[in-house]
Amino acid sequence: MLIIDCHGHYTTAPAALQKYRDAQIAHFKAPGSAAPAMPRMGDDEIRDSIEKNQLKLQRERGADITIFSPRASGMAHHVGDESVSSAWARACNDLIKRVVDLYPENFVGVCQLPQSPGVSVARSAAELERCVVELGFIGCNLNPDPSGGYFNSPPLTDKSWYPLYEKIVELDVPAMIHVSGCCNPAMHTTGSYYLNADTMAFMQLILSDLFKDFPTLRLIIPHGGGAVPFHWGRFRGLALNNGRPELDEIIKNNIFFDTCVYHQPGINLLAEVVPIDNILFASEMVGAVKGVDPRTGFNFDDTKRYVDASPRLDDAGRRKIFEGNARRVYPRLKAKAPAKAAV
Amino acid sequence: MLIIDCHGHYTTAPAALQKYRDAQIAHFKAPGSAAPAMPRMGDDEIRDSIEKNQLKLQRERGADITIFSPRASGMAHHVGDESVSSAWARACNDLIKRVVDLYPENFVGVCQLPQSPGVSVARSAAELERCVVELGFIGCNLNPDPSGGYFNSPPLTDKSWYPLYEKIVELDVPAMIHVSGCCNPAMHTTGSYYLNADTMAFMQLILSDLFKDFPTLRLIIPHGGGAVPFHWGRFRGLALNNGRPELDEIIKNNIFFDTCVYHQPGINLLAEVVPIDNILFASEMVGAVKGVDPRTGFNFDDTKRYVDASPRLDDAGRRKIFEGNARRVYPRLKAKAPAKAAV
Repeated sequence: MLIIDCHGHYTTAPAALQKYRDAQIAHFKAPGSAAPAMPRMGDDEIRDSIEKNQLKLQRERGADITIFSPRASGMAHHVGDESVSSAWARACNDLIKRVVDLYPENFVGVCQLPQSPGVSVARSAAELERCVVELGFIGCNLNPDPSGGYFNSPPLTDKSWYPLYEKIVELDVPAMIHVSGCCNPAMHTTGSYYLNADTMAFMQLILSDLFKDFPTLRLIIPHGGGAVPFHWGRFRGLALNNGRPELDEIIKNNIFFDTCVYHQPGINLLAEVVPIDNILFASEMVGAVKGVDPRTGFNFDDTKRYVDASPRLDDAGRRKIFEGNARRVYPRLKAKAPAKAAV
Repeated sequence: MLIIDCHGHYTTAPAALQKYRDAQIAHFKAPGSAAPAMPRMGDDEIRDSIEKNQLKLQRERGADITIFSPRASGMAHHVGDESVSSAWARACNDLIKRVVDLYPENFVGVCQLPQSPGVSVARSAAELERCVVELGFIGCNLNPDPSGGYFNSPPLTDKSWYPLYEKIVELDVPAMIHVSGCCNPAMHTTGSYYLNADTMAFMQLILSDLFKDFPTLRLIIPHGGGAVPFHWGRFRGLALNNGRPELDEIIKNNIFFDTCVYHQPGINLLAEVVPIDNILFASEMVGAVKGVDPRTGFNFDDTKRYVDASPRLDDAGRRKIFEGNARRVYPRLKAKAPAKAAV
């Protein structure tokens, strides 16, 4: 069995990336001079940033492949304008491609989109296509709130998102619904904003006909689905109150939750209420919560331990969560990870 | 043992109330004529609206007292201005008082505040005082997002909220942190908006020194604490990452979750991770989710069943959740419910 972690971000990129970002924002604010170029970055710098972090943790924890995307909180679609988001997404995605090329057995790419508030998401389709077709990426992160914390975009079920879904479906890649850093002082980025966006997205989806329009569209709700599994009865009831079927039926081929839930009781609940076919292994590392849980002696984000230990799962269930479901949700993974799979 | 439901809303008020509200909004938009007055409402109308709903369900499910407040989604602080919110809160609170007077053994009042976007919350203190001192209410609902869905208020830990906390502490009443109806098309009022506000509020509180400034301030996070118990490890980790103590310690005397979680696994998780002393029985009925769960044959919001059945609870724990904790959090309950308690 291959252990596939479907939710990893390049949070440890070399300092040159942030230097470029700072220059880019400065140029946006005072555009007199020439637009900045990405500084040169040696392979050694990239190797160093990965081997001491994501790769080290993969090995220690026994994961094989991480589906890897740019730092989510760094996407910051609310900063700058379309041209800023476009250059920034391209730079971040190109850097992921370099990681994947250096460690083709350990990482597979997922891209950031060049979304920008007030700009049609249709204009993100080209970068998605470039990343999938030219760079070999297998999915994208889709930001449901490019405002960075004020939730003023139309719901994901609105027709304005459809041009992007058309491209997503055409390329047969999934989208992880993932907001970026929060500029709203009322919400903590990883503590409440991420989870709230997850919960919001799920509720938008279950009362809609989106998957009638796009039967093969596959959306991943990260962070265990936000508040959803804990309130499974509430969401079931609301679906039924609105003449919709049971959640199991609604989500079947289209909505998936990851296992970024940082304690054993949470993973147990996830596995108890959400159909096993709709759960993907993930850790979000190196990410939201750092350090060792003093009660267990292991890292909070070492989610493999919770999946391994959950009494709600048998071997067949674990196999689905660790590998089988990811292969179904990310069909392009096949071309990237056939060798190990055959071992 | 008394079964105290700490979270009930008057969602079934006679039609005259909404008629008054409609007239009030119409007057705000076209203020030429005289301000509307609350239409006459007979005791029979009120009795009818309660006996067929909340009181019937109390009896069927075996609860004794409901801590009762105006319909949360009806508060709509984003509508109108300060004078509109002020008259509306007064009308809704006076109506709760009538219910309490008609059924003093079954209902105890909690008030709506006359919050209004851009208006200092200090100006809500007078209505709180009126409700507690003159009407005998025992708590209030505090809206952390009077914008109705755009989260543009300062965090609850901001000094701008302090004048209200001073009055709350002086009166020795708790506040339930509860948003109102959502006017943001991206968020469903009871499906995602309520839960997101809960999660947001908790995260604001745990990284703050609010309870150093107000050691006796007691805040209830409804709907089981939003996403918090499911992500207890995430919140523990974030607290520890920020040099804060364990959550159990942070919330001890100040933060309480209710049991408005509409399925057995959710209540089991709540009771597993949250200290029993910080859980209050509640159903939110007649409220967010209507109807019978086809898998259990009982109403989704019949939360007493889940508390009764949870293997995580013993009799002492249930006694705390059903009665003891509520008496601690709402000390003014003592004057209202002494008789039955002595039985």
